[in-house]
Amino acid sequence: MRPPDGAEVAPAGPASAVIVGTGLIGTSVALALRARGVTVWLADADPAAARLAADIGAGQVLPDGAETPPEGPADIAVLAVPPAAVAATLAAMQPRGLARWYTDVASVKSQPLRQAAELGCDLASFVPGHPLAGRERSGPAAARADLFLGRPWVVCPGDGNPAPGVAAVAALARACGAEPVLAGPAEHDAWVALVSHAPHVVSAAMAARLTEAPDGALAVAGQGLRDVTRIAAGDTRLWLQILAANAAPAADVLAAVGADLIAVAEELAETAAGAGPAPELKLLAALLDQGVTGVARLPGKRGAPARSEAQVQVVIRDQPGELARLFQAAGEAGVNIEDVGIEHSPGLPVGVAELTVRPDAVGRLTDALAANGWPVRR
Amino acid sequence: MRPPDGAEVAPAGPASAVIVGTGLIGTSVALALRARGVTVWLADADPAAARLAADIGAGQVLPDGAETPPEGPADIAVLAVPPAAVAATLAAMQPRGLARWYTDVASVKSQPLRQAAELGCDLASFVPGHPLAGRERSGPAAARADLFLGRPWVVCPGDGNPAPGVAAVAALARACGAEPVLAGPAEHDAWVALVSHAPHVVSAAMAARLTEAPDGALAVAGQGLRDVTRIAAGDTRLWLQILAANAAPAADVLAAVGADLIAVAEELAETAAGAGPAPELKLLAALLDQGVTGVARLPGKRGAPARSEAQVQVVIRDQPGELARLFQAAGEAGVNIEDVGIEHSPGLPVGVAELTVRPDAVGRLTDALAANGWPVRR
Repeated sequence: MRPPDGAEVAPAGPASAVIVGTGLIGTSVALALRARGVTVWLADADPAAARLAADIGAGQVLPDGAETPPEGPADIAVLAVPPAAVAATLAAMQPRGLARWYTDVASVKSQPLRQAAELGCDLASFVPGHPLAGRERSGPAAARADLFLGRPWVVCPGDGNPAPGVAAVAALARACGAEPVLAGPAEHDAWVALVSHAPHVVSAAMAARLTEAPDGALAVAGQGLRDVTRIAAGDTRLWLQILAANAAPAADVLAAVGADLIAVAEELAETAAGAGPAPELKLLAALLDQGVTGVARLPGKRGAPARSEAQVQVVIRDQPGELARLFQAAGEAGVNIEDVGIEHSPGLPVGVAELTVRPDAVGRLTDALAANGWPVRR
Repeated sequence: MRPPDGAEVAPAGPASAVIVGTGLIGTSVALALRARGVTVWLADADPAAARLAADIGAGQVLPDGAETPPEGPADIAVLAVPPAAVAATLAAMQPRGLARWYTDVASVKSQPLRQAAELGCDLASFVPGHPLAGRERSGPAAARADLFLGRPWVVCPGDGNPAPGVAAVAALARACGAEPVLAGPAEHDAWVALVSHAPHVVSAAMAARLTEAPDGALAVAGQGLRDVTRIAAGDTRLWLQILAANAAPAADVLAAVGADLIAVAEELAETAAGAGPAPELKLLAALLDQGVTGVARLPGKRGAPARSEAQVQVVIRDQPGELARLFQAAGEAGVNIEDVGIEHSPGLPVGVAELTVRPDAVGRLTDALAANGWPVRR
């Protein structure tokens, strides 16, 4: 197959790269590229962070005062700086001829592009990107070469980007083990508003109700509330930056969720006030049904529907070695455990391990566990 | 210590019980009581359900047409029927003299009590209760004697309940391995509205936004969205019943969450429309801060704060026996794994196991895993 005019054959990835910003993401990109033999140069506003990244094998620190790497412009420069710093960093690097192509890793795309245009940057050589990966911890010490393995990496070309530039960023993503996904900047921003930014605020709004809750209410809280509010524990300042930079798409989703909640709250309040037979609660029924439909659309592990999994529950004692015996029995039966969760019985020395397996393995697993004396339930 | 006037010394639990309604909760209560040698009689509107419960060892089916057990009224009758059926069931059982005390297990308390009063029931011998335990599955076959182990069991006495009745229900809870928690009916209903009923609707409202989402957005969704929306997959009809029966307290929480979301959505929309320097987003900042505070108030496992745990991450191959080796190494090092989660890399044969252990065990665990050749990260 001939490549399109002006495009190169899909490259295997860059031969050289400069990482500007050696935090968690930048250093992880560097480690992934180093593992593939790419020449990696490191720069950070904080020289100690760049040195730390170099110390853990992420590449070499770009020499002080050097405009470019010693061998000349790199194939690609990865601007792994906060969203608000992308445009200014690009404006500082392009005049130096640091690299042939530039990309970023920010979690919002439209605002940095707009700012880069305002600063007069060359938008032809800048192809924005966003790897969907992260950890609770930050900084170069938390970096891992496998951070992007199998994760989506959105590549957001504009009209002005030539095909080779787009191919270079897609190849960078693949070199890190990620799956490139093409999207327009506005499209990307609407996606992440829906699946990341708005859910964070919704979680926080529910968790905020707990600040004044009586202790008794907290004592009867179960796993459902914990799941809904887990991400609300995230860093306020970081999320404020993200939401400010993607304000309009996030506002759209939050306004819709808020309006739905207000509407069902009014319906419920009317129900509570009214006498007579049980009401229909039409709005609430529709919202709950939509919720069921919406959750079912989320891809399960490996893109397979979640329904292709089955759960087996085993009562375990809460002591060292207990899970080892359990998994050994499963392994000997040739059963692969897809996922596992442990539900403790507070204050008691037993728990329930819930093992997720493929449906066709349930029989083999329960037989094997029962044969080894485990109290097991499907 | 002398017991208060009119109270018996805290009883060890009933000697005999009738379970009316042999679904998941009723049969689990029956199994727990049978395990302690209690004489258990079973009844259900569906005779096949009662027989199934008897077949799995939950007790004996109450003879057809019998007003009471053969030996006379039981110590306690547990009405394990849906919330809407509690009052009518109580009204049907009390005239038969089925038991000395009556309790229920419904997830709402004010409405059944009001209905029981309307039906002219004897509210002195009825002490409402609510065990906070459940499973995704329902029916007697899903029942387990350990369902209530260490879980809270709210006991909701009214002014008309004599102390021995309250003590009898608390003793029932303890006999099932649960922790009795005293609360007024309205207080209970406000608690569960906050920690269970409203969170379900909030989760559904977020998940409802996904029904029209582009596939690309769903493809970049991460664990945060999955956590926030997980409980939205619950049964719509069941949740409609629950919410209808606890409408006013649930409406209060949902109206507050909805109003907060509308307010921050408006603030974000103004930000997006405005020019000039980055805005402050005061409302959003306050809500996110409250969310952090609220989550931190949730008790961790065994009532200990979640902060007393530490995570260790290990890259694992996705094949049988891999987890067994991992847990064996941990067990041999004397380290108890408190919890474990597996993050798969979609499409790739590796994953990351996140092991939760006590902070003082992190060093031992990482040493042991590293010595066994595991790539491990704290």
